[in-house]
Amino acid sequence: MAFDTFKRYLIGQPFPTSRDVHERLDKIRALAVFASDPISSNAYATEAIMSVLVVLGSGGLALTWPLGLAVAALVLMVIFSYIQTILHYPDGGGAYTVAKDNLGTIPSLLAAAALLTDYVLTVSVSASAGVRAVTSAFPEALPYRVLLAIGAIALITWVNLRGVRESGTIFALPTYAFVGGGLLVIGLGLLRSLGWLGAAPLPSINRALESQVDLVGLAYAWLLLRAFAGGCTALTGIEAISNGVRAFKPPESRNAVITMVAMGGMAMSLFVGITYLATHLHVVPSHTESVLSQLTRLIAGRGTLYFWVQASTMLILFLAANTGYQDFPRLASFLARDGFLPRWMQNRGDRLVYSSGIVVLAVVSSIFVLVFQGDEIAMLPLYALGVMLSFSLSQAGMFRLMGRIAHLKLGEHLRTEVTEIHYERGVAWKRMLNAVGALITFLVFLVLVGTKFLEGAFIVVLAIPVLVGLFLEVNRHYDRVSLALRTKDLSVRDLTPVADVVLVPIADVHRGVLRALMYAKRLSSDVRAISVTTSPAMRARVERRWARFPEITDGVQLILLEYDFRDILTPLVDYIVDVNNREFPDQLVTVVIPEFVAVTLWERLLHNQTANTLRRLLHDLQDIVVIDVPYHILSTAEWRAGARRASLWEGPRPADDGEDGPDEASA
Amino acid sequence: MAFDTFKRYLIGQPFPTSRDVHERLDKIRALAVFASDPISSNAYATEAIMSVLVVLGSGGLALTWPLGLAVAALVLMVIFSYIQTILHYPDGGGAYTVAKDNLGTIPSLLAAAALLTDYVLTVSVSASAGVRAVTSAFPEALPYRVLLAIGAIALITWVNLRGVRESGTIFALPTYAFVGGGLLVIGLGLLRSLGWLGAAPLPSINRALESQVDLVGLAYAWLLLRAFAGGCTALTGIEAISNGVRAFKPPESRNAVITMVAMGGMAMSLFVGITYLATHLHVVPSHTESVLSQLTRLIAGRGTLYFWVQASTMLILFLAANTGYQDFPRLASFLARDGFLPRWMQNRGDRLVYSSGIVVLAVVSSIFVLVFQGDEIAMLPLYALGVMLSFSLSQAGMFRLMGRIAHLKLGEHLRTEVTEIHYERGVAWKRMLNAVGALITFLVFLVLVGTKFLEGAFIVVLAIPVLVGLFLEVNRHYDRVSLALRTKDLSVRDLTPVADVVLVPIADVHRGVLRALMYAKRLSSDVRAISVTTSPAMRARVERRWARFPEITDGVQLILLEYDFRDILTPLVDYIVDVNNREFPDQLVTVVIPEFVAVTLWERLLHNQTANTLRRLLHDLQDIVVIDVPYHILSTAEWRAGARRASLWEGPRPADDGEDGPDEASA
Repeated sequence: MAFDTFKRYLIGQPFPTSRDVHERLDKIRALAVFASDPISSNAYATEAIMSVLVVLGSGGLALTWPLGLAVAALVLMVIFSYIQTILHYPDGGGAYTVAKDNLGTIPSLLAAAALLTDYVLTVSVSASAGVRAVTSAFPEALPYRVLLAIGAIALITWVNLRGVRESGTIFALPTYAFVGGGLLVIGLGLLRSLGWLGAAPLPSINRALESQVDLVGLAYAWLLLRAFAGGCTALTGIEAISNGVRAFKPPESRNAVITMVAMGGMAMSLFVGITYLATHLHVVPSHTESVLSQLTRLIAGRGTLYFWVQASTMLILFLAANTGYQDFPRLASFLARDGFLPRWMQNRGDRLVYSSGIVVLAVVSSIFVLVFQGDEIAMLPLYALGVMLSFSLSQAGMFRLMGRIAHLKLGEHLRTEVTEIHYERGVAWKRMLNAVGALITFLVFLVLVGTKFLEGAFIVVLAIPVLVGLFLEVNRHYDRVSLALRTKDLSVRDLTPVADVVLVPIADVHRGVLRALMYAKRLSSDVRAISVTTSPAMRARVERRWARFPEITDGVQLILLEYDFRDILTPLVDYIVDVNNREFPDQLVTVVIPEFVAVTLWERLLHNQTANTLRRLLHDLQDIVVIDVPYHILSTAEWRAGARRASLWEGPRPADDGEDGPDEASA
Repeated sequence: MAFDTFKRYLIGQPFPTSRDVHERLDKIRALAVFASDPISSNAYATEAIMSVLVVLGSGGLALTWPLGLAVAALVLMVIFSYIQTILHYPDGGGAYTVAKDNLGTIPSLLAAAALLTDYVLTVSVSASAGVRAVTSAFPEALPYRVLLAIGAIALITWVNLRGVRESGTIFALPTYAFVGGGLLVIGLGLLRSLGWLGAAPLPSINRALESQVDLVGLAYAWLLLRAFAGGCTALTGIEAISNGVRAFKPPESRNAVITMVAMGGMAMSLFVGITYLATHLHVVPSHTESVLSQLTRLIAGRGTLYFWVQASTMLILFLAANTGYQDFPRLASFLARDGFLPRWMQNRGDRLVYSSGIVVLAVVSSIFVLVFQGDEIAMLPLYALGVMLSFSLSQAGMFRLMGRIAHLKLGEHLRTEVTEIHYERGVAWKRMLNAVGALITFLVFLVLVGTKFLEGAFIVVLAIPVLVGLFLEVNRHYDRVSLALRTKDLSVRDLTPVADVVLVPIADVHRGVLRALMYAKRLSSDVRAISVTTSPAMRARVERRWARFPEITDGVQLILLEYDFRDILTPLVDYIVDVNNREFPDQLVTVVIPEFVAVTLWERLLHNQTANTLRRLLHDLQDIVVIDVPYHILSTAEWRAGARRASLWEGPRPADDGEDGPDEASA
């Protein structure tokens, strides 16, 4: 009751199912909603490159710029591939759908596992990076970063459990504020570096770093690879639009493509601009202040613009975390629908959201924040891995699809399991680009595995096959259930017949037991009351009380089992199993459990949980039907209200003719 | 299964009930068993006085000696009173029994509450003090004192759960070793202080202490009272023998009295000796080394005798903790028998011990050790409080008993509820002594409450009435249960009749549901299958599949409840309640729940716990009989074993005629 009120207060009144009309987004708001994840990557992507190169000293940091350009080229290729996906899967084509439609079950599960880990890390990384925007501005908040990050996750979880729709205009603000602030800083920085507005200030570089390394050949290449792999976090979130094509206003595909292009333009302007300036202003990554914060401070000072950028960074990162809350539960519900996750992950809660997926996501991402102490740069090696694998699988899927299109003639079309494809021109070069994209993202995936394995990537490398194994195991279970319950070719003769016997375990003879015996006598002519006695006194007592109610006990066999231990359920269950196996094999045997029920939890603690335990034991046996005949005991409050009346007609002392009260009702 | 094996390994094979013959103790071993608690108090009682007086400096510490003598006088009076109790309650007369027999329910419950807190603290204090004997000898173990104390409690708990009998000769050794070692140190100390064996060494006293205080009048008296109250911990455990008279060999009372006198002699020799020497050797209490350890070191050096005393101190203290494990579960079982604690506290476990009491004791005493960080001196203010209250109540009870004896004439006798009393001489002065004892212990109780309230005694002061309230509430509950279930004047007409209706909640039509419907049709001619549908598609599907099994569904009414939310159990329960209230008021309505049962826990997680939740909801309603008709799904392993066969006669794909598998079996 109290819990229910609390839940109503926290989550709000339930929504009826019929209220579930999907609101469509115009391009302005769609951009804000879907692009928050890839655009927010700019808060850490450049830093991820630099934090590897920093071991080379200031000369090494200069390499950030060419590596950044390479990452930007990769982004363009991936965006092109996803535009193809949007056009061919107008109902939404995440990596899972595309891989399922073109590559088969295992690749689609690999993509799903990769994406699920990716979404979890989206939340952990974005929440941590958002908090970092705060602690960069206010270093005194640094000791509380873990607490703040988990608090942010809790807040986002709460908002999502309440089912706030993703279309609110307020959600658009942080994205545009961040893009605007970022571009302003970049523009200002470029102007100042060209000598306008006065020369750009030059930070003091720790020269000691230069002497520490002297790498050549392979080691040098390895370092560059690692830095490049780090920069690939800029790619995270690009797939979001392709998942949500149906959320756009018609013409959906066209609007989605336009939004995709705009998103790519914004994200890459920011990435290239930040990387260029960070390289040329000789910013050095630091544990206490983010590169973006340093850059802004160098260019604009700690004025209004600085706090504008830090605040909008925090907000867009929290918004990016929020996209994890859109994507994870949706993908989990797809997997549940296809029988690869528990079916209940499909159920929507009071507010029409997939509550279980939201809660799972919140818990797992909080664990990551805790383990990595809210350090998002340390989490990045795990992050990009899943993204790259899903990109690669998705593009490989598109490559297969393009291959099928290549066989079509003008005017022909065919249906795959998910979508409809038509003849189109220029398939050959599109297909080639998909192949290159699949290959490069797969290579980046391998580089990430190789370079970041010991830094934490092993967690994802292990988690993905474990998740796939889990999906398959869940699927096998549902196949089995389906087969066991199937009704095809079923005839009535196949159903287990009901044995003409009813067993009633009793410990004493009281009202509850008498009620159960009356119920049992209606069911069968062979009713047996079974009592386990642990002493001659107990035996005599049961027999004496039994004899007192001939009206009810006549025709019922009283079976007394003597037992010299205290776990009385053991002989009871043994007897029941014995009756089932020897007297009525392959028939349903009925057990009637008389149980008295106390109303409050506190009162339930006062009784042996004998009835519950017996029910649980019998539950594990095949072919045992359990009947609970309850007998309710009033609560103290109800009792007090009725006590006066009761004492008038029952006499002052409630003891039963001088004997002890009943032991336990059930067994 | 795994848990069961582990339990067998840990606890051992169960004992049959018939094995429970009480072993009788001779005086030598009885002394060791019962006296370990009071004798072990000498490990800290003197220190408890000194730790108060230490604020007065060395001049103040000299007051330890007269205060010690006052405590010893009080002990003698209490011992005398308990000898009377032993003689008048040969079946065992703890404070609970004596108060119940002479003063009534509430005083007896007060005594019981006081004793239960006392037993808990016996364990906490003795385990902590035992560890202190170790850390005094080996200061490097000091940081681990809490861990060591809780480890000791765990060990003692384990031994008690295994049901080791209290009579083992090995239990006698620590007591005699401690008494022997202690007396040897005292003897040696006296000889050295008399100048024999060379002059006693004099410790350096921290003179700085003297200047800190300058107390006069009331403040001084208050300090003396607090110090005296501290010394009263020497009284703890004296009542043990009176509880366990039946454990002695016949003549029980006589042997118990002799043991009591011997125990008093030993305990007081040690207490007086230690106090005398501690005062005259100018020992100063210290946080890192106990007074007893300092004393032994001063007198005997860090030689064999020192380690002998420390080791036997540790052992006797653990043995004293063990007496808490004898007394607490026994008293709890008495209270449970009388209906003041849950009945299951009477149940004895596999090894014929009151397992639940043992576990409760272990948990609560560990919490005290944790909260007080294993500092037994800090716990002492709580400890003596309960003891004093129970002494006072017990002696007040004896005072009443003596009053009744005073009315008897020569040769007369009468029976109280618990014992039989005869005419005896000298009742008047015995009664007077009991009155004085009751009064003084009650005054000490008040002094303890007053002086130690803020030091922790408030915990016990609050706990005792809370416990008494709990006892009474439990008792009221059992009275109600007894009244509700009583069979006196019962006739068959009073029992609720069974309504001729059976309700079967279903979500789908599969083998499990068909089995349940067949079962239901045997019970009644009015069977109604109830399905909550949340969409037109679901409704159509249920109707289509329903129509497919006319052999079974004929004669069964299909009731479809449309519902626009997701919590489908709400309309289901509403419907059931409605049927009960409107169609069949005051009759038992039967609900058949078809349930498929997965074998492994892991597989159960894959399904909505719909059936369980429904059962729990219905359980709270009056007059609803619930029938579980199970349908077992094989586990993966069983499945793999049988898969080959199944695939031969069922075809390769287990899906059911192209439709999705069944949703959930139950509702």
